[in-house]
Amino acid sequence: MINLHPNWISGFVDGEGCFSVSFSKRNGWIEVRPSFSVCQSGKRFCHILKALETFFGCGGIRFSANDGTYKYEVRSLEDLQTRILPHFEKYPLESIKRKDWEKLCRICALMKRNLHKNKKGLIEIIDIAYTMNQSGKRKYMKEELLQSIGS
Amino acid sequence: MINLHPNWISGFVDGEGCFSVSFSKRNGWIEVRPSFSVCQSGKRFCHILKALETFFGCGGIRFSANDGTYKYEVRSLEDLQTRILPHFEKYPLESIKRKDWEKLCRICALMKRNLHKNKKGLIEIIDIAYTMNQSGKRKYMKEELLQSIGS
Repeated sequence: MINLHPNWISGFVDGEGCFSVSFSKRNGWIEVRPSFSVCQSGKRFCHILKALETFFGCGGIRFSANDGTYKYEVRSLEDLQTRILPHFEKYPLESIKRKDWEKLCRICALMKRNLHKNKKGLIEIIDIAYTMNQSGKRKYMKEELLQSIGS
Repeated sequence: MINLHPNWISGFVDGEGCFSVSFSKRNGWIEVRPSFSVCQSGKRFCHILKALETFFGCGGIRFSANDGTYKYEVRSLEDLQTRILPHFEKYPLESIKRKDWEKLCRICALMKRNLHKNKKGLIEIIDIAYTMNQSGKRKYMKEELLQSIGS
């Protein structure tokens, strides 16, 4: 097993990582799903994802048959707040991905205080999330989400 | 100007960098062009490329109107051998890109000894280069290059 240098990890994540928040409609409300992930195409890159999983001690690796990629992903709020996000405080990101990290920190802090369960907090989270990862695909338009909670 | 950590650089290059060798036919012989490059799409990533240029103290940044990417590239054999390649000896790459780095070290060493100017050396360089960056595009088929030097 390779032993990754913490600054190497931040550099690699600046290139290949993703800090994002997705939403799904559930029981008349909206579920908020924060995520940290690193994708790699093909099995020959998989040892890096395994080393990341070992380093952070959380998350899991999934294969997507759709596009042949492997993804290391952490979705647990607890793990994001205690293991993933603090890493990049200590070993900073240098690309504009740092902005997405800052936004995910803010969203996780709101969720920790359960503010995603009331309308005002949820709207703030949606507002922030829709400025993240602007090249990524979204299941819902922002307006559609806001409408569904009567806003 | 941001100050990049050397291990951050190796992590970023493991994700976004490229060690390659291209060839072009010239005056009945083949010109060998070793290269280290890092591409980024869009101007908002440009500060990273500028920081890499400052860190390594060589190479240059070009814009490709074709695909809207910016590329930091080092092509000078001297700079590759004295500034770029030794960095990854000290701060190792962890992905399979390390193999391409090793191969570029070997090719640059052969070129330093002027062995690309004789047939045996050139064939060895072509053999190695065509096992690098297997997803990249090539101007010539390997067989076409070998034929053109009568091999």
